[in-house]
Amino acid sequence: MMYDIVLAGGAGTRFWPLSRRERPKQLISLWGGDTMIEATVNRLRTRETGEGVFVVVGDHLLEATRSVLDDVSDEDFIVEPSPRDTAPAIAMAAVHVAERAGEETPMGVFPADHYIGARTSFHRCLEAAEAYAREGHIVTMGIEPTRPETGYGYIHAELDRNVEASGRPSEAPRARQVEAFVEKPDRELAEDYLASGDYLWNSGMFAFTPETLFDEMERQLPDSYEAIEAMRDVWDRDDRDAVVAEQFECLEATSIDYGIMEGARDVVTIPASFQWSDVGHWAALDEVRETDDDGNVVEADSLLVDVDDSVIFSEGTDRLIAGVDLDDLVIVDTPDALLVVPRESAQKVRDVVDRLEDEEREDLL
Amino acid sequence: MMYDIVLAGGAGTRFWPLSRRERPKQLISLWGGDTMIEATVNRLRTRETGEGVFVVVGDHLLEATRSVLDDVSDEDFIVEPSPRDTAPAIAMAAVHVAERAGEETPMGVFPADHYIGARTSFHRCLEAAEAYAREGHIVTMGIEPTRPETGYGYIHAELDRNVEASGRPSEAPRARQVEAFVEKPDRELAEDYLASGDYLWNSGMFAFTPETLFDEMERQLPDSYEAIEAMRDVWDRDDRDAVVAEQFECLEATSIDYGIMEGARDVVTIPASFQWSDVGHWAALDEVRETDDDGNVVEADSLLVDVDDSVIFSEGTDRLIAGVDLDDLVIVDTPDALLVVPRESAQKVRDVVDRLEDEEREDLL
Repeated sequence: MMYDIVLAGGAGTRFWPLSRRERPKQLISLWGGDTMIEATVNRLRTRETGEGVFVVVGDHLLEATRSVLDDVSDEDFIVEPSPRDTAPAIAMAAVHVAERAGEETPMGVFPADHYIGARTSFHRCLEAAEAYAREGHIVTMGIEPTRPETGYGYIHAELDRNVEASGRPSEAPRARQVEAFVEKPDRELAEDYLASGDYLWNSGMFAFTPETLFDEMERQLPDSYEAIEAMRDVWDRDDRDAVVAEQFECLEATSIDYGIMEGARDVVTIPASFQWSDVGHWAALDEVRETDDDGNVVEADSLLVDVDDSVIFSEGTDRLIAGVDLDDLVIVDTPDALLVVPRESAQKVRDVVDRLEDEEREDLL
Repeated sequence: MMYDIVLAGGAGTRFWPLSRRERPKQLISLWGGDTMIEATVNRLRTRETGEGVFVVVGDHLLEATRSVLDDVSDEDFIVEPSPRDTAPAIAMAAVHVAERAGEETPMGVFPADHYIGARTSFHRCLEAAEAYAREGHIVTMGIEPTRPETGYGYIHAELDRNVEASGRPSEAPRARQVEAFVEKPDRELAEDYLASGDYLWNSGMFAFTPETLFDEMERQLPDSYEAIEAMRDVWDRDDRDAVVAEQFECLEATSIDYGIMEGARDVVTIPASFQWSDVGHWAALDEVRETDDDGNVVEADSLLVDVDDSVIFSEGTDRLIAGVDLDDLVIVDTPDALLVVPRESAQKVRDVVDRLEDEEREDLL
């Protein structure tokens, strides 16, 4: 059995105008149904070998998150006193798991705002991750690339360097030893990676026991380790919340990738073949949604004349969106803001949000 | 003195979604102030030599038109019983002028939905037109081209074939003899036209006396002429309205250009140098409105990042329009419909309207 930690602290701005400060990406719905965090929690909950889900969330998003996750009990929300990147959030979650179930209990870590297509295949990978984590490995989920993507970091893990774990169910995939985490490549390098078979997309999903994590923290982030120890010392005391809040500020503000993974002694990866996307911007929507015959993702009352490979999305308005002779364009319509941007510039939505901040357009942030 | 006829029967669809069936182009405002027809009427009214303005309008637009032209008296609206193109509308207006002031009274004919930049220069041209019309010429307003425009018809009138009229005020331009009306040229031909000086844009503005018009109708459109005569015969009788409505259906449904102008014996043109545009589609908006430093026409709450030469227009909504990395794009936002189309496809808005008709989206037409 494995505890699942859902990281819901994100403040993503790249889905503006649908996402806002008070409603970041994990709290929006990009496919007309569940919000991304609901989908994430349900995907974890529906497997048989899950022990329970903890949701790590920032203070200002607690209420909004709780309202969409009404079947997660109050004590399973872990509130970050302040945003300090992923390493502190995961460390605090690890304390929760260790104190509730013992520090040998595997825990998985999952971003709240990713897309995963095939649930059964995902569950198999989790069974594998649990088995490897239980044996003391740091486990990362590596997605088998389907295209020479330049927008993701990669995991270098040679095809023939398999690692075995005794507890691995026979139908669950076998892990490989990780050589290194590598940065986003240019196109040429990405093509080499794809051809070699030795590189996987870094999905940002991990598993380990608290014990393994704490060991690595003691070695790599000793100040953080001290803070963790201080939290655990008071766990049964009445002043726990105050001490945790105080010690949280002593945790080094770094990501789990830089702070722990890259320097860890023993990292394995589970090669995963399920459809996955971090859905990083509007132009990625066609990775996770059906397109029409012209390659468009359409979620709106629309009238399209010679429109191809575009994203036409509206929420909260029933206005008709009429497009003529458009290629590779993103149109997002909401009651108070409309966005029009070419696919290839979808990441520049951040510039719009920056400008809104400069202009103090609080109503639109 | 000259009567002015404003043709307001148009059902232009090329400014959808701002223009609709019940609010065609002449009833919209493209520069945040007067509707186009108000601007047209005021432009005519403010000259000293105008006798009065008649407005020819379709039955279904009478109320809407009257409500924006509240200083035009009821008897000066001429209602078309049915839409039959411009020749019948103008013929009926000519009967009105002839019966009110005599058939030697010059009348000018003006589309309700054109843009004219310089009022004084326009008024000078009208004084010239009146003088030539009074002497029996058919007069057309020819705009001196400023670019090799392929979207307009041209008037062939050689630079050196001046025509004099004894009544022309000295400061009003001198007319030229018209050789022919020519169709919209291709780019190369348009460049030749521009270079030669012998070609002017056909503005669709005319002047003549009813007598001249009736003579040409008798010769070129004899059935129409008979209907005109029948109308005039009953002008003082109580059953005038019924007879006019009946006879109107006997007027040949053709445009003044094809039905009269092209075959007329004596046409002169007033070379006009004022800024003029028929504002035929959204992409023409930069001909008549100020652009910002990046060449954009912006009439909206907008946030533009690297947007050039685009039209950003909203009416009836205060939504923010955010654009990133756009060139030559038209965005028009209204409460119930949004249009996005490249400048060069602006004329294809008609296809959208056709599709709405096919789909019986009456609410959006």
